[in-house]
Amino acid sequence: MTVEIISVGTEILLGNIVNTNAAYLAEKCAAIGLSCYYQEVVGDNEERLEGVLQTALERADVLLVSGGLGPTQDDLTKETAAKALGRKLILHEPSKAAIESFFQKKGIEITENNWKQAMVPEGCIVIDNQNGTAPGMIIEDKGRHVVLMPGPPNELIPMFEHAVMPYLNSLQPGIIYSQTVKVCGVGESKVEAMIKDLIDEQSNPTIATYAKTGEVHLRVTARAEGEKEAKKLVKPYVKELKGRFGNHVYTTQEDVTLEKAVVDLLLANHLTVSTVESCTGGMLAARLINVPGVSEVFKTGYITYSNKSKRKLLGIKKSSLEKHGAVSPEIAKEMAKGAALFGKADVTVGITGVAGPDGGSGEKPVGLVYIACNVCGRIDVKECHFGGSRMKIRESSVSAALSLMRESILAYYSEVTFGARK
Amino acid sequence: MTVEIISVGTEILLGNIVNTNAAYLAEKCAAIGLSCYYQEVVGDNEERLEGVLQTALERADVLLVSGGLGPTQDDLTKETAAKALGRKLILHEPSKAAIESFFQKKGIEITENNWKQAMVPEGCIVIDNQNGTAPGMIIEDKGRHVVLMPGPPNELIPMFEHAVMPYLNSLQPGIIYSQTVKVCGVGESKVEAMIKDLIDEQSNPTIATYAKTGEVHLRVTARAEGEKEAKKLVKPYVKELKGRFGNHVYTTQEDVTLEKAVVDLLLANHLTVSTVESCTGGMLAARLINVPGVSEVFKTGYITYSNKSKRKLLGIKKSSLEKHGAVSPEIAKEMAKGAALFGKADVTVGITGVAGPDGGSGEKPVGLVYIACNVCGRIDVKECHFGGSRMKIRESSVSAALSLMRESILAYYSEVTFGARK
Repeated sequence: MTVEIISVGTEILLGNIVNTNAAYLAEKCAAIGLSCYYQEVVGDNEERLEGVLQTALERADVLLVSGGLGPTQDDLTKETAAKALGRKLILHEPSKAAIESFFQKKGIEITENNWKQAMVPEGCIVIDNQNGTAPGMIIEDKGRHVVLMPGPPNELIPMFEHAVMPYLNSLQPGIIYSQTVKVCGVGESKVEAMIKDLIDEQSNPTIATYAKTGEVHLRVTARAEGEKEAKKLVKPYVKELKGRFGNHVYTTQEDVTLEKAVVDLLLANHLTVSTVESCTGGMLAARLINVPGVSEVFKTGYITYSNKSKRKLLGIKKSSLEKHGAVSPEIAKEMAKGAALFGKADVTVGITGVAGPDGGSGEKPVGLVYIACNVCGRIDVKECHFGGSRMKIRESSVSAALSLMRESILAYYSEVTFGARK
Repeated sequence: MTVEIISVGTEILLGNIVNTNAAYLAEKCAAIGLSCYYQEVVGDNEERLEGVLQTALERADVLLVSGGLGPTQDDLTKETAAKALGRKLILHEPSKAAIESFFQKKGIEITENNWKQAMVPEGCIVIDNQNGTAPGMIIEDKGRHVVLMPGPPNELIPMFEHAVMPYLNSLQPGIIYSQTVKVCGVGESKVEAMIKDLIDEQSNPTIATYAKTGEVHLRVTARAEGEKEAKKLVKPYVKELKGRFGNHVYTTQEDVTLEKAVVDLLLANHLTVSTVESCTGGMLAARLINVPGVSEVFKTGYITYSNKSKRKLLGIKKSSLEKHGAVSPEIAKEMAKGAALFGKADVTVGITGVAGPDGGSGEKPVGLVYIACNVCGRIDVKECHFGGSRMKIRESSVSAALSLMRESILAYYSEVTFGARK
């Protein structure tokens, strides 16, 4: 079945608000196997809205329409949908009673225009709105399903979860199952090149790639009669991808971020962490600290933007800074070592670089970043060259630091296991 | 002139990402007086994309298309737009050279698929991409203007600002001039209530409000024959808004962020700053350090997520932590004081709070955050109650801290000036 997501509201067309409803509905539809080929935004204008609805009715089975159900004159989604489907509007007594009680509970007088919200297209399914006055509606028409929902997310989301999703699920035979393989430390085009054969031959399951800063997500999606069959289709592809990307795969779970994977690795090995940041100025610590439960492993974060604070907080020698310069593999290393000494953590990370836009030189251009990761005395240093704005360079540095932390911890334990270390 | 915003990408249809590009472009178009009646999202599918482009070509003067310009097989926006307009793709040598140098700078081997990005529709205007490998393109065709831009916001936004916006401005007769009054420390609904009379009577100029985390931007836009006339229309409104919001107006310049306003205030008064963060874990320092030139004022950032690090780095007494709890006005104050003592800065900020999702209690619920700001010994403490996710609570805390820093510095100098302080 196909779905089309139509958002009604001039405030979206003007860029006053970001259309988070569409993203929410799209994700939910994908999760229950509805194919969404189009999303539209249209203003509170009868003619244009009717045009959009007519086009969507011709190409989709389900229309998810949000916004324009309120009491004002601008709100004309319901009227326009009724017109497009040739239905009359009739008074829905339970909705009228609900509006009455809503206002009574709030102790506000009902203005005349609110009764408009109790009018619904003839023969539709009315959905109770537990967080507002405008009810939702489902109009079934020649095998198509037009769902009208209020625009405010705090009304739309609970209504969708409780009433619309179960309704949509009941319409479909079979199911869709997908799993995401998340890869870090490999560039988007290299990832794409490494799985070109799989993409070329794909049918069911399909593989889609999503590039993020410093990582690439590969989503494997299968369609089958039951969950068991769908999972069976997905499994060998996930295994194949894991084989191809090895240690670069940091998770196959939807809700695990790179920082969570790092924190989980620290927790599993009873390791603590301290960070020392120069150009990233706290962004690495901030990402780690966004993981609930990080207090078990995070000890201290130092932001040593100036040379003076590098010396004072971490005991880095003035002569070292003068000899190598603040942006150098040596100083990155000393930052990580200093954090181990003063921050008393098992894993310490030092980041130093030129984030720009100024401060670059021929020898040390903007985008040059050194990251050192110390795991119980074993130190890796990585030289990176990033492009983009100051913010982009800093974001890329943080992702690279998280990747390096994973690599260094895994390398430490693999060396321990294989006896390479004493 | 009318514009249509078309976002290409299966990841938007699947709800993997929120379509912030469309909101950004819509806001910019509104600011330069382009009317937007439709936005669409379509996947990386040739047939459907071509259909959307054809429909848009029939009803709009300008098509702003983003996404699908990358090196992968999925990326076919350029190919499809060329087909829809009957153009051949030809090799663009400067783009080829730019791709080569981009990879060389990064020290990464170029995979074959990257060359695809140097192919452009015949006769188009090619726009340099300073933050990625895919160039932008403008195709002019029978009075219509099809603009193709890369999807990643860090590539799209600078490209739009530097090349597309001036191009779109040049297409229009007369000019549009707008100025933004940025307000912090006042909630959205209070701002709206305070300017309701101005909004009600508006015609030329218009006033639009944009709510951001912890701030509200008020854009005053006028249309006139020349820049001088337009500026003359805007000026009295900007003055009126500045009068109404007083010190809460932190800038009237488009490119000045709240953190830049704070750093500028520090620079102007020769003040240094150190930060101490618990729940925000470095996010305040990271925002300050995103301002180029911050090295003049930023001394040290401490991330003291654990009680132990609060004690060790800032000398906060165990008995204080036990008596008041880590999330308390007293500890926020001691954090700011400790940073002044150990970080030797004029302005110090301490943030402590419950970011959730766990760790809340009846007395100290999730979202409770205390922020202390110390300016040369004068300390303000603010109690905040934020809603939303862990990340949202932390972002709101950082914005509130920046607002408080401004207020505290201004209050300090006003007291000094008026002799209230000895």
